[in-house]
Amino acid sequence: MSLELNKDEMEQYLQEIFPQMIRDFQIDALDEAGIIMRLLVNDGHLRPGGTVSGPSMFALADVAVYAMVLSRLGRKALAVTTNSSLDFLRKPAAGRDIVAKGQLLKLGRSLAVGDVLMYSQGSDKPVARATMTYSIPPERMAT
Amino acid sequence: MSLELNKDEMEQYLQEIFPQMIRDFQIDALDEAGIIMRLLVNDGHLRPGGTVSGPSMFALADVAVYAMVLSRLGRKALAVTTNSSLDFLRKPAAGRDIVAKGQLLKLGRSLAVGDVLMYSQGSDKPVARATMTYSIPPERMAT
Amino acid sequence: MSLELNKDEMEQYLQEIFPQMIRDFQIDALDEAGIIMRLLVNDGHLRPGGTVSGPSMFALADVAVYAMVLSRLGRKALAVTTNSSLDFLRKPAAGRDIVAKGQLLKLGRSLAVGDVLMYSQGSDKPVARATMTYSIPPERMAT
Amino acid sequence: MSLELNKDEMEQYLQEIFPQMIRDFQIDALDEAGIIMRLLVNDGHLRPGGTVSGPSMFALADVAVYAMVLSRLGRKALAVTTNSSLDFLRKPAAGRDIVAKGQLLKLGRSLAVGDVLMYSQGSDKPVARATMTYSIPPERMAT
Repeated sequence: MSLELNKDEMEQYLQEIFPQMIRDFQIDALDEAGIIMRLLVNDGHLRPGGTVSGPSMFALADVAVYAMVLSRLGRKALAVTTNSSLDFLRKPAAGRDIVAKGQLLKLGRSLAVGDVLMYSQGSDKPVARATMTYSIPPERMAT
Repeated sequence: MSLELNKDEMEQYLQEIFPQMIRDFQIDALDEAGIIMRLLVNDGHLRPGGTVSGPSMFALADVAVYAMVLSRLGRKALAVTTNSSLDFLRKPAAGRDIVAKGQLLKLGRSLAVGDVLMYSQGSDKPVARATMTYSIPPERMAT
Repeated sequence: MSLELNKDEMEQYLQEIFPQMIRDFQIDALDEAGIIMRLLVNDGHLRPGGTVSGPSMFALADVAVYAMVLSRLGRKALAVTTNSSLDFLRKPAAGRDIVAKGQLLKLGRSLAVGDVLMYSQGSDKPVARATMTYSIPPERMAT
Repeated sequence: MSLELNKDEMEQYLQEIFPQMIRDFQIDALDEAGIIMRLLVNDGHLRPGGTVSGPSMFALADVAVYAMVLSRLGRKALAVTTNSSLDFLRKPAAGRDIVAKGQLLKLGRSLAVGDVLMYSQGSDKPVARATMTYSIPPERMAT
């Protein structure tokens, strides 16, 4: 299945719709096989002790799966998160970006499901795992 | 089981350890039966369209369960989130705080599990549901 | 919201569609507020040591939420499980039925979400917690 | 990390401890990289319409992760499921075994987390996804 929006178009689109939030994120790769997305870690993402916060990793997984879904459905589509599960596996390394590697497991008419493994940059042991389900409202057919 | 830290002591403790984050949260009630915690919604929590963001609701559920665990174990305890599941059920009402009602389902030697329902203030239909698991490292025995 | 199928009608319907499986289950109560459903524990549900197996508790939560959804939508409806999360909290008591108490958190046009706490009969400490999401295909409109 | 129990030793061990259950399962591969485990589908696993039941897929994911954990810890170890999340993605093909491909994401002192994708034999589109967390009680140190 080819993409409606490639990496550059997707970054442009995210900047239009989430201008505040997206400054902290960067797409390293986006193609039919999946996505590599990066959380540009700054002090706002940290908890005492230097750990990247849970909500920051939730946000990374959420936007990574969103970008995979929208890259296939195109700009007009709507998609809202309905379910998420996260496992926090290891303490992230201090001062490193978090790199998310995602794949889309399902893109149905009404539901899309994506899977994400997150790593401290330079490590091959995952710090967290997430699955995100998006609901695709039927209104997208209308346009 | 009586509490090691009551509502006021817990708020004081959260301000010591999470001074940046905790400004957005308020404990309405904390006792043996559970917790009522509030996200004081401001523009930083919103997505386009006025919806409260997923990461903000994740943060609310996470800190609500953390406060229930620490209120029972006391200041010296450590607890780290290991697993979370969230279901987003309805669009939150614009301009309303999110109120989380939590109960602790298990407080074992090494794992604690808490359940949270979240509501837009003034509504009785939940906007989200979350379960959070905390791991309690054995080091807490050392002090 | 009144029920399309009451407790007796629901039991009858489950026996029609799941005759093999439903022998192990019994509805104790079903109304607008929720469901109480019982797993009639026999040797087939046990693991060595007398613990009720995980798949048996999954099945109990799954059919409890299914019954809540169908009791509201009626016999013609279709509903398939799309997501589940379970937490196993305590070892069930030997030789006791498992009692599930469920509530429906959402019944939308395309998704329904229900929450279940499970107890060994006679205990008030939950042995497990589950959330089940059902997808309701649009075909149900056709009839 | 080398394995304490290889594929044949693991199958032997599962037959000793779960003689009833394990007849329906077969290990196709087990090594440091992960596991391939098969549900030998028979009528007992089916729902009306020929779908493999949710509890059967839960059982497959559960035993696949259990086998990965025990293959590393050895026969003396204890491990109990504490958390699971499953997404059901597609209807399984009628009359086909379900093949689970699992990897161990974490093996800590007290928690192990494994990830499983499940396929109808011969298809490369997953029918389900699961994550299982096992708690490893400290008593295993005693022997």
